[in-house]
Amino acid sequence: MEVRNRYVATRRHVEGAPTEADFEVIEGTARWSPDSGEVLVKNLFLSIDPYQLNRMKVTSASHHAVDGILPGQVIINQPTAIYQTPCSIQPWPEMLLNRLLRLRRGRVCERTPMKRIAAYTAGEVVASASPEYAAGDVVVGVLGWEEYSLFDPSSPAAAATVHKVSTGGGGGFPLSHHLSVLGTSGMTAYGGLFEVCRPAKGEKVFVSAASGSVGSLAGQFAKLAGCYVVGCAGTQAKVDLLKDKLGFDDAFNYKEEPDLKSALKRYFPDGIDIYFENVGGEMLEAALANMNTYGRVALSGVISEYTGAGRRAVPDLLEVIYKRITIRGFFAWDFLPKFPEFGAVIGEWIREGKVQVLEDVSDGIDSVPAAFAALFRGQNVGKKLVKLA
Amino acid sequence: MEVRNRYVATRRHVEGAPTEADFEVIEGTARWSPDSGEVLVKNLFLSIDPYQLNRMKVTSASHHAVDGILPGQVIINQPTAIYQTPCSIQPWPEMLLNRLLRLRRGRVCERTPMKRIAAYTAGEVVASASPEYAAGDVVVGVLGWEEYSLFDPSSPAAAATVHKVSTGGGGGFPLSHHLSVLGTSGMTAYGGLFEVCRPAKGEKVFVSAASGSVGSLAGQFAKLAGCYVVGCAGTQAKVDLLKDKLGFDDAFNYKEEPDLKSALKRYFPDGIDIYFENVGGEMLEAALANMNTYGRVALSGVISEYTGAGRRAVPDLLEVIYKRITIRGFFAWDFLPKFPEFGAVIGEWIREGKVQVLEDVSDGIDSVPAAFAALFRGQNVGKKLVKLA
Repeated sequence: MEVRNRYVATRRHVEGAPTEADFEVIEGTARWSPDSGEVLVKNLFLSIDPYQLNRMKVTSASHHAVDGILPGQVIINQPTAIYQTPCSIQPWPEMLLNRLLRLRRGRVCERTPMKRIAAYTAGEVVASASPEYAAGDVVVGVLGWEEYSLFDPSSPAAAATVHKVSTGGGGGFPLSHHLSVLGTSGMTAYGGLFEVCRPAKGEKVFVSAASGSVGSLAGQFAKLAGCYVVGCAGTQAKVDLLKDKLGFDDAFNYKEEPDLKSALKRYFPDGIDIYFENVGGEMLEAALANMNTYGRVALSGVISEYTGAGRRAVPDLLEVIYKRITIRGFFAWDFLPKFPEFGAVIGEWIREGKVQVLEDVSDGIDSVPAAFAALFRGQNVGKKLVKLA
Repeated sequence: MEVRNRYVATRRHVEGAPTEADFEVIEGTARWSPDSGEVLVKNLFLSIDPYQLNRMKVTSASHHAVDGILPGQVIINQPTAIYQTPCSIQPWPEMLLNRLLRLRRGRVCERTPMKRIAAYTAGEVVASASPEYAAGDVVVGVLGWEEYSLFDPSSPAAAATVHKVSTGGGGGFPLSHHLSVLGTSGMTAYGGLFEVCRPAKGEKVFVSAASGSVGSLAGQFAKLAGCYVVGCAGTQAKVDLLKDKLGFDDAFNYKEEPDLKSALKRYFPDGIDIYFENVGGEMLEAALANMNTYGRVALSGVISEYTGAGRRAVPDLLEVIYKRITIRGFFAWDFLPKFPEFGAVIGEWIREGKVQVLEDVSDGIDSVPAAFAALFRGQNVGKKLVKLA
């Protein structure tokens, strides 16, 4: 079986803010055969995430965790660096750890787009040479920015990162949710808030990029934890959304604040206990200046520093010492052992209407470059997805 | 009873590197009466610590934790900001917490030097109007940079911060040790390493300012925890001391390294797991670039940033995120509930000769300004103390 398969590739390394011209959509072919052991998936939704930019640079700290992307190569999201147990987190289940270790050791950087490796998507099985999957199954996993993906369920990579989901009736959720609130965005917000920050009722929480995929959830989760929550965003419409739809206690447009330190002082007269950081730069400095003793900063992302558009944060380390602040970098995969708990808790919150899911969906593979570039112009509201077919 | 009492005061706020001219030694009088309830202490050793500089500035983050010092005022070290429980640390014993809360609420910023408040010293009781103390008792506590100190044992401040020690024979230690290895320097090293960093055997530990009061102990403690330890210092003599006397696996002179990132890459080909940070600035950036996944930075001090001599650190936050690094500010008083454990463990290590104690002692109250200024010129080796009488 052979299908026409269009995929997104970078034309060059991307160093500043990405533009559509940095990408091209290439037409290729996906070939599946009944004796391959492989599963052919028609992708229905692709996840578009800011952190992918770091992998498109010639070099960045991202490359420690996941390989950089070479121009012309299919864009992959594979969590290959998850091979170590953080000291303050529950140990990984041994089996999973071993799988991922094998995955890391055995992985080869694939350059031909059809021999796919991975990138986060949701799709439907159209052909399967594996007894574990049948045509019609709906799957979510680390597949690719492409119309069709092939994976081998017997490979450790696929076993660790692809799973079936039920959608629609019977307690199921819209497929797109599995890439947003029930996917890594939700896990980033959940793990960052509950595992990294451990909020106590009544604590004061500041969320930057609060209308984004992660921020919009982190803020709502903090409200559910009984915290006082203020978010910032870059337009009045987003500010209204945070207050009116997402239940933030307050919100402000950072672009209209000439002095972020003073702004935060106004919104947090009693100081900030928890800062859920998605922005970096001056925003981090202002937050640190307003933090309380034993404050915690969950370093989820620093989008202003990804593009080099804003200047890097120059934190006052005396603030960090004297206030005994903890700053911790993390990402969703750190909390993989918590996925079942997470799915159950968030699923219930969604069913009860306690969490609003913001998804910002573009159509068609050709829209991927624009969708990605828009993230860095603050043009998305909630999780950016591309719907295929 | 009235004794001549000389004390050290600042002439002005100190903003850059301190010099002797920033201070003056003032002659005053300490008055004690039998019906005062007070104890009169003749100070024998004064503790000289870099962090005191932050309190001498017009403003700094230090002032959140302890009051700033006004020119002409006696220099105090009182740990008044210890009023909250960090989320990741054992709760304080309730009683102690309440005492400190009262202390904080009731405290008045004293301007007259003789009505003393506090500064870290060790001394001998010469007169007591309290049944808890008798002439001849040896005490350590938050007293002052002065020849004589008065304290009221019934005050929460004194109850929380002053205690009797035994010195000499019978398992006792030299009095000076109670201000160095058995005092806050030791507790900073112990708490920072074991509580903040939680080293595992075989982990790679980097200590900056490694021949200083805290660094010299943190490095030795890390060796006792089975780690590979490299320190940096600012002279060849200090480097030799680290390797030959303190048992560091390796050490280097940072002043002879044009590129700190490359230097650390050489000394840590397998990366740094733990960075015990005393310096800040470029050193922190270089350490982050060389850290491993799930690395921990214990932010004990940033002496290069205290004086504004070095530029502030501009950490690459992508390193922090992708390597899932934790940076945590702390100070010794955070670990007060661990003092008994700490004293027992370290005491045993000293008796067994497993820990070398470096003390750098000047003579007389007149030497305090020079001793303090010398800290910022890297002229001390180990804990800086001033011996009186």
